Amino acid sequence: MNPLARFGSATTAPAFGGELPLGCDPLLAEPSPLPESCLAFSHGRAALRWLCERSGRFDCAVISAYTCPTVPALLEKIGLRLRLVDVFSADWEQAVGSEKGRLLVVAPAFLGHEPAVDVSRLAAAVGESGLVVIDAAQTAFGHLSFETAENTAVISGPRKCASLGDGAILRMHRVSEEERARVKRLPWAIEAVAAKLAARSLMACRSPENEPDALAFTARAEAAWPDAPHRVSDSGLWRLSWLDPKAHADARWRNWKALEQALGDHVEILRLPGGTPFNLSILVEDRAAVLARLHAARVFATALWPNARRRHDLHPRAEDLARRLVGLPIDQRYTEADMLELAKRVRRCMRR
Amino acid sequence: MNPLARFGSATTAPAFGGELPLGCDPLLAEPSPLPESCLAFSHGRAALRWLCERSGRFDCAVISAYTCPTVPALLEKIGLRLRLVDVFSADWEQAVGSEKGRLLVVAPAFLGHEPAVDVSRLAAAVGESGLVVIDAAQTAFGHLSFETAENTAVISGPRKCASLGDGAILRMHRVSEEERARVKRLPWAIEAVAAKLAARSLMACRSPENEPDALAFTARAEAAWPDAPHRVSDSGLWRLSWLDPKAHADARWRNWKALEQALGDHVEILRLPGGTPFNLSILVEDRAAVLARLHAARVFATALWPNARRRHDLHPRAEDLARRLVGLPIDQRYTEADMLELAKRVRRCMRR
Repeated sequence: MNPLARFGSATTAPAFGGELPLGCDPLLAEPSPLPESCLAFSHGRAALRWLCERSGRFDCAVISAYTCPTVPALLEKIGLRLRLVDVFSADWEQAVGSEKGRLLVVAPAFLGHEPAVDVSRLAAAVGESGLVVIDAAQTAFGHLSFETAENTAVISGPRKCASLGDGAILRMHRVSEEERARVKRLPWAIEAVAAKLAARSLMACRSPENEPDALAFTARAEAAWPDAPHRVSDSGLWRLSWLDPKAHADARWRNWKALEQALGDHVEILRLPGGTPFNLSILVEDRAAVLARLHAARVFATALWPNARRRHDLHPRAEDLARRLVGLPIDQRYTEADMLELAKRVRRCMRR
Repeated sequence: MNPLARFGSATTAPAFGGELPLGCDPLLAEPSPLPESCLAFSHGRAALRWLCERSGRFDCAVISAYTCPTVPALLEKIGLRLRLVDVFSADWEQAVGSEKGRLLVVAPAFLGHEPAVDVSRLAAAVGESGLVVIDAAQTAFGHLSFETAENTAVISGPRKCASLGDGAILRMHRVSEEERARVKRLPWAIEAVAAKLAARSLMACRSPENEPDALAFTARAEAAWPDAPHRVSDSGLWRLSWLDPKAHADARWRNWKALEQALGDHVEILRLPGGTPFNLSILVEDRAAVLARLHAARVFATALWPNARRRHDLHPRAEDLARRLVGLPIDQRYTEADMLELAKRVRRCMRR
């Protein structure tokens, strides 16, 4: 029994959301090593940058108009031309066909679900000089669940979906021993990992008194992730090897379904097929007011990518999501009973 | 049940020593606030510097020749003349009598035990313009157990003796509301605290795979403590309020006695009265070899202050301790059975 579990205040409702606390992940009985075709980095951008550097210079990146703005910022910084495509659009192949030079396509496994684009057709369209990378940064185990071929790759984000300090996995069709050795010689992101683990350890106290410091550490971690390639920490890799992929996915789907059912018809829910859900996304009008009421009810829901790099005229769906999407937590720390309580609070905050 | 408790390897002996893991402290049923006469800082040096700044300029500091070298370094940096006195020496009053100007006496509660000097006589000797501060940085609760008077103070070090990220307490005879407000406005040591909590969270996995990263975080934390006054983090203060002083002291004395008995006559043990032991200190010849054997046996014992600012001719006792002292862990994470296992390993390492 962890004595920290005794911490907590009876007078304050439990919080939903915020940093995943240390120790919340379902574990295997024995650790399971990473597949040979995988390389482990500190975080998604580090993996993406490595992928760009190891593959030689791309000329243009075809990316979603609704993604974390650090992704287009990084690609521009390393000299790629950007071509934005609206989310859920059929325009990907057309965009690929109309761009010149070596192409990098970043195809989102949006919110952890199946890519909405046909990856093998895109891979054929970019040709041998191009590359399609499935951006599964919102999954813990996309590197196990999405297929790769000669000119496709996957980047997953276990650090975002499990209580790790760091960890993003790049899966490719083949990894040479020489490349593996080069990644092992990279530095690790000690400052960001320290802040992240500090935030998670305070969240594990499950007490409001620790939340402001936890938030400060989270902000510090986000600011400290470097653009340059960094490997995963040794402890991060070891802890990743203990995570149970099936129990992880089962818990998230169980909670997603419980919350979906409990929310009923009162809320507009984004429903996407396959994969493992990162959150349960709802679409609301007057999001700022809803978020404020949710926060007052201790539901630390987030507006996802309000600053996504879209153009409202060219990317109407991205614009809509960037303005209205709210992510509700359905992760492995929660039970179905928690989801009923969460639904109650969400419905109350929507009614006003 | 914390799932991290399942981590660990059956093939490797458990480790002794190293960073206190998160969650190892005995807790109260209800939190207990700090006494009114206390101010909470990030770490001992921050408290000491605040004490010097709030008291106006001291001319000279009378300190032990056997103390952490960061203490004389700080006092010199802020312009005090240093007068070193040998440990366990009767020379303190004579040193005070022979120094001119406003005096600050740093009287050690050495290894958590009772001060070997007579604090009230020293306080009389330094007069109204001087100050005697009991350096109880090797205790979690020296601010509760050592008495203060008009020109005496205590600095305790809960961060060193409990699984906190930060926390050093300055107890004075009186604290004004204005001074309390000024301390609250100080920054907190976010970088050091992040690294410390990261190290502790990895230590809580109780697995050798995490130890190298934990050590890296510990080193980073030690390098990151600022000289300037910093307040304690809000979460550090809150966590401190939950610690059980009596159960803490009982566990340390229970372990100290169990280890002392199990070590028997094979080892030279430093025995000091009162207080709460920081460790069980033994004195060994050829310390480097003994430490290497202990580390190989996964006993992460430490040489205490090999770089203490002493002069071997003037401070023979400090010289002896700085050369021969090894601190063995007896803290609250251990049971009596652990102490028997620790004694076995220590005796094996001493016999060679």
